[in-house]
Amino acid sequence: MNRYAVIMAGGRGERFWPESRVSKPKQFLQLMGDRTLLQQAYDRLLPLIPSENIYIVLGQQHLDLATRQLPDIPPGNFLVEPEGRNTAPCIGFAAIHILKRDSDSLMLAIPADHMIRGEASYRQSLEKAFFWAAKGDYLVTVGIRPSRPETGYGYIEREDSGMDTHPPVYFVRRFVEKPDAEQALKFIQEGCFFWNSGIFAWKPQTILRRIELYLPSLAAGLEKIGSCIGNQDYMAMLKEVYPKLPSISIDYGVMEHSREILMVAGEFGWDDLGSWGALDRIVPGDERGMKVRGNFVGYDNDNCLVYGDGGLTAVLGVRDLVIVRSGDVVMVCPKDRAQEVRKLVELCKNNKLEKYL
Amino acid sequence: MNRYAVIMAGGRGERFWPESRVSKPKQFLQLMGDRTLLQQAYDRLLPLIPSENIYIVLGQQHLDLATRQLPDIPPGNFLVEPEGRNTAPCIGFAAIHILKRDSDSLMLAIPADHMIRGEASYRQSLEKAFFWAAKGDYLVTVGIRPSRPETGYGYIEREDSGMDTHPPVYFVRRFVEKPDAEQALKFIQEGCFFWNSGIFAWKPQTILRRIELYLPSLAAGLEKIGSCIGNQDYMAMLKEVYPKLPSISIDYGVMEHSREILMVAGEFGWDDLGSWGALDRIVPGDERGMKVRGNFVGYDNDNCLVYGDGGLTAVLGVRDLVIVRSGDVVMVCPKDRAQEVRKLVELCKNNKLEKYL
Repeated sequence: MNRYAVIMAGGRGERFWPESRVSKPKQFLQLMGDRTLLQQAYDRLLPLIPSENIYIVLGQQHLDLATRQLPDIPPGNFLVEPEGRNTAPCIGFAAIHILKRDSDSLMLAIPADHMIRGEASYRQSLEKAFFWAAKGDYLVTVGIRPSRPETGYGYIEREDSGMDTHPPVYFVRRFVEKPDAEQALKFIQEGCFFWNSGIFAWKPQTILRRIELYLPSLAAGLEKIGSCIGNQDYMAMLKEVYPKLPSISIDYGVMEHSREILMVAGEFGWDDLGSWGALDRIVPGDERGMKVRGNFVGYDNDNCLVYGDGGLTAVLGVRDLVIVRSGDVVMVCPKDRAQEVRKLVELCKNNKLEKYL
Repeated sequence: MNRYAVIMAGGRGERFWPESRVSKPKQFLQLMGDRTLLQQAYDRLLPLIPSENIYIVLGQQHLDLATRQLPDIPPGNFLVEPEGRNTAPCIGFAAIHILKRDSDSLMLAIPADHMIRGEASYRQSLEKAFFWAAKGDYLVTVGIRPSRPETGYGYIEREDSGMDTHPPVYFVRRFVEKPDAEQALKFIQEGCFFWNSGIFAWKPQTILRRIELYLPSLAAGLEKIGSCIGNQDYMAMLKEVYPKLPSISIDYGVMEHSREILMVAGEFGWDDLGSWGALDRIVPGDERGMKVRGNFVGYDNDNCLVYGDGGLTAVLGVRDLVIVRSGDVVMVCPKDRAQEVRKLVELCKNNKLEKYL
């Protein structure tokens, strides 16, 4: 069976505003190193999957950006969503394209904007996921062994014992939404709880059948689009149907209802880079915990993330802040409230300041 | 006797960095309202002194800026210092020019960058100062009745009782350097201590004689320059002599040694705008003490001064900070450390980041 990958690059990355903008969401940024998150996601797949089998789902407004960042991917593999409708439509959309091209295929779906540390281990996990996806009509997910009692992620509870198989795999008992601190601590102690990474493998027809079962209106829309792939009505049909698809995540819409979900245990470093706080966890600091990018002067500061994209940032006598200067916007907030940056984005929308988004 | 004024506009305003830059120090900025501090200083004098009698002392690099800001002042009244040498040379330099032009003159000297509230009262004080300057060979200074136990200003202690005269005036007992908090509190309780505003009035020949007495090398240099005023050697002489003049303030160099100094009590609002903290005192805030200029979104902030010159500043969950975004520089510091901005300027110099100054 042939392997395909779908990199989901339609996210808005609002919690990384103002570095992440409507015109250039975080997956297209060099948040770490000199490759963008999207490029890094692509690079990591290449040893497993040839570039002609890698698909990118994204918005029209980012197509130029993405094709420039990934010149080796065939133009036809950039699947443009007329409108972002969350991950269930995105995955279904990619599935119909892959199935149309190759009826004997396996499909991996990954987010474009995650941080991975330990690439060999990452690819081993993907190998295991592909192995089990090929074995039958399984939905296979990769759970990450938690390294801290994180309250910002969803969790997967696996069955106590693995199937007596090689490579090892577990049945999923349930998906758990973001826990409170007490629950999260319990999860980490029990050892059967893993972070829900949003990395999935399956046969296209397997996920499409589940969508039919749990999200029939989505299935009907995908059917209409699929029937036009390769003919001249495709764009018109896509533009008519896609914006009306139900906006729902694959987790809520399919995974949480399904049985026979398998989980591969990922032992690699992973972060969903959900906010500036996440970047702060990853970037190494100096002896006073200062993490600085860009031209900087300052003294007597502790434990701040200072992120400048040009110009100079000058800071004295502060602690535990995120200070971002990106283009025409400056953003300052305490680290432990970095999740709330989204509310600043809302405030911009409500105050006719969309030009800064 | 004819009245003249000298506006001293040679300051660097480093503690207002990054809004204040080498190329555009704070006196040339619209820190409050839509006139620059220099323009405001000029506007306030006009009811007392015609523009052709107002002189501006400044650096060559700011001449264009100043002539554009004050188009009604004759070009010859802009006195260019080849190099800033503090206030004693500045005042002596202006005095020789005024004396050369008009031997029956009174001269007022004021800083370009102060905030005044209560213009009528301000001008009444200047009238009093002119009155006493005309009466004899007095150095007349304007002391400001203190409104708080400020430790950032120098003080003037006046004699207990005024001379039995109209308008009222006092002899100065002594000049006091910036006091500590305890001293400052005592000063305010005693009632004989006034803030040293740096506003002076005298006859040009009076101040020049005192300079001769206490700063003979300055007097010798001024003599050389004065002898060339109006002839073709002037610029060459100025450029040769001025940079070698002793760099000293009129307070240290003359006032603190002199006797027969009179003080007029100023009852108007006054601030030397020494730092962002000073601006914070003056600008009215909202119910949570937030003082904001420029495009801003934010919530749950207390008691911050946010100063943006374009673009957007977005802030959540912080308190007691100064946040300035000016051109290519962002500066963040606690309000009670705003005086230290000068050290950030030093850091820039030491790290080859002068282009941000």
